[in-house]
Amino acid sequence: MTYCLAIHVNAGLVLISDSRTNAGVDSVSTHSKMRIFGVPGDRQFVLCCSGNLATTQGVYAQIERDFRDDATTSLKTVKNVSEAASYVGALSRKEQEKTPGGHVFEASFLVAGEVWGARCRSYMVYPEGNFIESSNQVPYLQIGESKYGKPILDRVVTMESSLEQAALCALVSMDGTMRSNLTVAPPIEIVAYAAGSLQPGRYRRFEADDDYLRDVKRNWNKEIKIAFARLPIIDWEVEESS
Amino acid sequence: MTYCLAIHVNAGLVLISDSRTNAGVDSVSTHSKMRIFGVPGDRQFVLCCSGNLATTQGVYAQIERDFRDDATTSLKTVKNVSEAASYVGALSRKEQEKTPGGHVFEASFLVAGEVWGARCRSYMVYPEGNFIESSNQVPYLQIGESKYGKPILDRVVTMESSLEQAALCALVSMDGTMRSNLTVAPPIEIVAYAAGSLQPGRYRRFEADDDYLRDVKRNWNKEIKIAFARLPIIDWEVEESS
Repeated sequence: MTYCLAIHVNAGLVLISDSRTNAGVDSVSTHSKMRIFGVPGDRQFVLCCSGNLATTQGVYAQIERDFRDDATTSLKTVKNVSEAASYVGALSRKEQEKTPGGHVFEASFLVAGEVWGARCRSYMVYPEGNFIESSNQVPYLQIGESKYGKPILDRVVTMESSLEQAALCALVSMDGTMRSNLTVAPPIEIVAYAAGSLQPGRYRRFEADDDYLRDVKRNWNKEIKIAFARLPIIDWEVEESS
Repeated sequence: MTYCLAIHVNAGLVLISDSRTNAGVDSVSTHSKMRIFGVPGDRQFVLCCSGNLATTQGVYAQIERDFRDDATTSLKTVKNVSEAASYVGALSRKEQEKTPGGHVFEASFLVAGEVWGARCRSYMVYPEGNFIESSNQVPYLQIGESKYGKPILDRVVTMESSLEQAALCALVSMDGTMRSNLTVAPPIEIVAYAAGSLQPGRYRRFEADDDYLRDVKRNWNKEIKIAFARLPIIDWEVEESS
């Protein structure tokens, strides 16, 4: 399993990914699921993936080759992030079609970034190659094990959130998911891209024993308990069960 | 869909359930999923259900008939909560077997309570009729749409939680689930049973527009934001993406 998340606020983009891959509980490994591509001053992209590892590695390898070798279509040539999502979707379908066997080779991607002259955007690319964009009402996209980490996003993230807030919320969302699903695990990679900068975002990789990550977990657990203690006590009416 | 939760702490039991049933998004209705049975001074049971509505109604109807008519085996005769879970599991299988068609008629139950001379217990009964108990490490059981509401339970509930804390946590867990899944919806029923009392627990039913429920939601959203503001700012190393 996997958990990747793209938060798209006015201030920019935050993407976070775990690094656990598994084929059954007795075949567990660690692979980075995040890739960053950019031409400073012209374009920046952050990609995350979930799904079949052979497919996602194949897609990432092709994206890298196209980028490096100045292919006709690559993340260097697309005019905006929507074109980037379309390009990734096409590569993903092509990669899946190499192997007969259907949905077990499926993969999903988050494609977020900005190109000079166009707007900062984030998309989720389905295994079929089509894609959707985040909205002002729901300013995030998730792939993989999305449920555990969703309520905290709904409560905290709005278009007005700062990049720092969005990044912290992404970490807490990831932490809750890791607690609940053993197949989502560190290292955690996170990147925060400032809209309009067209420069590489701030990047951080957290190992399982990272002091800061532990600090956030501990603080969050403590703060949640304080928040609970402040909730209004239940008003148990006279109404009683029989 | 459904979300029901049983929290079992040293102080007693908290059960909570939503009331939304649906067969497709265009066939939505409201049915209580909680039943309370008891003989004050001797025994108390709280049951919740998820799954096929015909099955769960059939099982609840049989439990009620057995209880009322002093059947050979009923919630009046079982010696402990484990026997109650076994009885409910047997009724559930029997009900499912009435209708050919397999898993679409499946149902799950939470069976919690206490019988004089035995201990306060909580069980989750699978569609197959077998069941598991909550543990000191994970002092809760969930049926239905369980993922959205799980992280908050893991962060807050321990065996040492008070009934009030457990009830509040159950409400927040339910609120997060309702926000994320439209097929989990009010009225919300909650009961808090004090271990050793053998008296009916405190019971409360919250409609969608309940003032207290709205108050809890609003406060929780506010407190979560305060908690966030107190988290340590991410220490973005010198390490930068390229």
